[in-house]
Amino acid sequence: MFERNRQTLDEALTAIAQRGYWSAYPESPSPRVYGEGSAERGKQAFEDHLGKPFELDQPATGAWIGAERSPYGMVLGVTYPEPCPPGLAAAAKAALPAWRDAGPEARALICVEIINRLNERSFEIAHAVQHTTGQAFVMAFQAGGPHAQERALEAVACAYAAMTAAASAVRWEKPGKGDPLVLDKRFTVVPRGVGLVIGCNTFPTFNAYPGLFASLVTGNPVIVKPHARAILPLAITVRVAREVLAEAGFHPALVQLAAEEGRGLAVELATDPAVRVIDFTGSTEFGDWLEGNAGQALVHTEKAGVNTVVVDSTDSWRGMLGNLAFSLSLYSGQMCTAPQNILIPAGGIATDEGHKSFDEVAEGLAAAVGELLGDDARAVEVTGAIVSPDVLSRLDGAPKLGKTVLASRSLRHPDFPEAVIRTPAILRVAPSRSDVHGREHFGPISFVIPTGSTAESLDALRRTTAERGALTALVYSTSPAVLEEAERAALESGVNLSCNLTGGVFVNQAAAFSDYHGTGANPAATASLTDPGFVAGRFHLVQSRRPA
Amino acid sequence: MFERNRQTLDEALTAIAQRGYWSAYPESPSPRVYGEGSAERGKQAFEDHLGKPFELDQPATGAWIGAERSPYGMVLGVTYPEPCPPGLAAAAKAALPAWRDAGPEARALICVEIINRLNERSFEIAHAVQHTTGQAFVMAFQAGGPHAQERALEAVACAYAAMTAAASAVRWEKPGKGDPLVLDKRFTVVPRGVGLVIGCNTFPTFNAYPGLFASLVTGNPVIVKPHARAILPLAITVRVAREVLAEAGFHPALVQLAAEEGRGLAVELATDPAVRVIDFTGSTEFGDWLEGNAGQALVHTEKAGVNTVVVDSTDSWRGMLGNLAFSLSLYSGQMCTAPQNILIPAGGIATDEGHKSFDEVAEGLAAAVGELLGDDARAVEVTGAIVSPDVLSRLDGAPKLGKTVLASRSLRHPDFPEAVIRTPAILRVAPSRSDVHGREHFGPISFVIPTGSTAESLDALRRTTAERGALTALVYSTSPAVLEEAERAALESGVNLSCNLTGGVFVNQAAAFSDYHGTGANPAATASLTDPGFVAGRFHLVQSRRPA
Repeated sequence: MFERNRQTLDEALTAIAQRGYWSAYPESPSPRVYGEGSAERGKQAFEDHLGKPFELDQPATGAWIGAERSPYGMVLGVTYPEPCPPGLAAAAKAALPAWRDAGPEARALICVEIINRLNERSFEIAHAVQHTTGQAFVMAFQAGGPHAQERALEAVACAYAAMTAAASAVRWEKPGKGDPLVLDKRFTVVPRGVGLVIGCNTFPTFNAYPGLFASLVTGNPVIVKPHARAILPLAITVRVAREVLAEAGFHPALVQLAAEEGRGLAVELATDPAVRVIDFTGSTEFGDWLEGNAGQALVHTEKAGVNTVVVDSTDSWRGMLGNLAFSLSLYSGQMCTAPQNILIPAGGIATDEGHKSFDEVAEGLAAAVGELLGDDARAVEVTGAIVSPDVLSRLDGAPKLGKTVLASRSLRHPDFPEAVIRTPAILRVAPSRSDVHGREHFGPISFVIPTGSTAESLDALRRTTAERGALTALVYSTSPAVLEEAERAALESGVNLSCNLTGGVFVNQAAAFSDYHGTGANPAATASLTDPGFVAGRFHLVQSRRPA
Repeated sequence: MFERNRQTLDEALTAIAQRGYWSAYPESPSPRVYGEGSAERGKQAFEDHLGKPFELDQPATGAWIGAERSPYGMVLGVTYPEPCPPGLAAAAKAALPAWRDAGPEARALICVEIINRLNERSFEIAHAVQHTTGQAFVMAFQAGGPHAQERALEAVACAYAAMTAAASAVRWEKPGKGDPLVLDKRFTVVPRGVGLVIGCNTFPTFNAYPGLFASLVTGNPVIVKPHARAILPLAITVRVAREVLAEAGFHPALVQLAAEEGRGLAVELATDPAVRVIDFTGSTEFGDWLEGNAGQALVHTEKAGVNTVVVDSTDSWRGMLGNLAFSLSLYSGQMCTAPQNILIPAGGIATDEGHKSFDEVAEGLAAAVGELLGDDARAVEVTGAIVSPDVLSRLDGAPKLGKTVLASRSLRHPDFPEAVIRTPAILRVAPSRSDVHGREHFGPISFVIPTGSTAESLDALRRTTAERGALTALVYSTSPAVLEEAERAALESGVNLSCNLTGGVFVNQAAAFSDYHGTGANPAATASLTDPGFVAGRFHLVQSRRPA
């Protein structure tokens, strides 16, 4: 069953070490890649879930719950078994020993098999992601499907490398005056306990898979607690994992779903003594609460951040504006990696089209967004829909935050007239207003900020990142000295930096196996996807030795 | 300067992966190994410290403090600069950037150089360890010198492997319909911040070196806070590190000493926002406090534990008794790895010398200890001296804990008449008295406990380890089924197991590069020396990328 998976794992191990381009799962939703009819079958599979109970043979109360509503307007009507939390924990603990005893290689190959099966269901999952997050279909396919699957595989490979870095058995011979001392030693990977993954609304699979697979491959059974508004993508994921685990002879309780309508189930699960690893993506408030109150667990969090762009100069005026416009518009800026604060010298910048004043840069950016999103039918495929009432009310209040450079407008989706769709708002805010630009405004809200100089901009990048965290930073400059100083500012504040993106790579996108997502070195996240710190604490080594 | 160090590092990297026998620093304090006159020069160097200020050019208040008194009787009279904690933190932060920018390889080779220099001063450090811990000289030499140095090198190698597992730069080329997307990427190791190492009284170097070197090699400046009664070994260590760092062109503030007489300096340092990594060895009470109250830091602790021996049967009655007697007697049981609870079936055991009743096993063990320690002059070289008044008063109260099988007695040291020296006490305690045997009695106190069966003994091993933690477990059995069950109990409770030790390997000893010290999988410690979990969180990776 798993010969092909061994090769995939080996390739992934090479890729995470070399960090060059490698892709395990094609990102194109083309029938030439995924097969004729796969798109239609996936859509049908998604539609077959709607309005029905989603069966999972798990410890449950007997009630069926679920209140997902698509940002595109429709009520999904899927219901899930209401979990019995102590029952989930007990079932997970009971399933643990056999999974631990299977060892790293068997676990890794089974995890690869789960990911392969998820890949086969990328269209079905894409529709589920689209109609829980509001992402446009192609983005839901890519970020919710292959890109999430690649982050899963990366986590499996990284954890496998850590588990197998040292021998699992050895004969130890110590020379001495008389006979040597000879011992046979065994070193066994043991998991921490039960893992808990707390999903988010905007990227239910992408942000949940790394923790799910890093915990699972290191031997920890995992309880998956989706966001109340984005259950279906993770329910499908859990079902696929359970099927593969059962086929391989393991108890499906190794992966369980803990659906809720929003009653605070995460608090109850996170403080269960059996839960020893937690992966959370969401608000800083709840992330901080978990870090302070789930002391029995290793807690990994990805929280809010304020992503900064420093504009110093460019040799591609149009490339810069187009690139930035896309980054602001993609999924209406509802990405943890989207830029928020755009810092521009008040005196303007040098470009390949001559000097541009601050206002020309701000207006140029507004025009580029306007051009990108000029045609409603095409625009909605970039922006998707607004994920939640919170984002919408934040956007409605945005004009009060500064002087409007670009007003947000509503778009009408040709297929989904009820969808709530908005283009980005850009506001001019003074650098002194750190009460405004010094915190995250999640959604399609960004600020152009006139600074005294690029040095001031870099200081602001440093300060905002260190204080509020950031997942990305972006700098435009034709000056090697400025780029060098930007590298130093990014190192010191601990944020991943992109420079001079003017083409088809965008600051809000990171490629698995090569780019790290987050660093752990600023308040936005405790670790990075995927570095040794993300995987190492999930398992321990227990040794035995006896005379040979 | 560092060509030879590169080879040492490479050999250490191979050793930690293969886990077979390897030694970097000879453990024999013989002139044939360390050179004629080295012993005498080391003794002289130690004596030259006595009664004098120990100069270190660090941020200080101007006062000179220190109240170390040898467990062998004499007052050391060494004084140290009273540190100015905010000054230490500021100096450490100022020294960080150049050390970070040096990169993993330069840092690793400099750390190896520091360890080499410490090795050259093993005799001097051995006397300092002897007269702060009470260890006998040979043990102070081995555990405080080469064995500690090997744990330091192991930590350097393990951290280096984690830092260099992935490429530090790559050209990334993504194929596309048109021109490929090409980016140059850099990945830089950045430290968490300032490290704090909080030392213990009994193994000042052995327990401090792994955290000190793991933090230092990953780029974190380190403040070393010794136990108030065991400053000198770490003061010498800090001075050596500062000398090497300065020679290599770095600021010596990368390693600083924070001496105290016991005013609670650890609390002040541990809650400094600049301190981002803490390594602590000591009481469960303070370890738990650190884990709960130093939330800004990655906290690694090694705390109390209750080590269990399960006696089921043996094919070497005399070997077993001799081995156990030595483990109980070595350094008067003042080791975190020494056995405490010896579980024996009430109905007795099968041996190569016939069936032995419970009382025969208990009395045989008492006799073996008596024989080992029969000659005072030889005995003191095994037991060393009692480290502190706490241990002494605990031992004085021990007879109340159960029925005395072997009474502790005082020994007179031929060279140090004022030394407080005690042989082990062994008490019989009922298995129901978990109020007694269910907690650590640090020092020369052990219990023989009659159980209903070996199955009951293994249940107790499992329970005690899971609840109270343990660094070691030891099982004697001739039955493969019992050994198998013991392996399972050890795996499930997360403790390193030794089986059937009857010769020259003792349960309280672990060989660097092969044996792990602690597991992280039970309450006695958060990680193991040295596994990926001990090193990974000390650094992050920060990336930059730009079009090629």
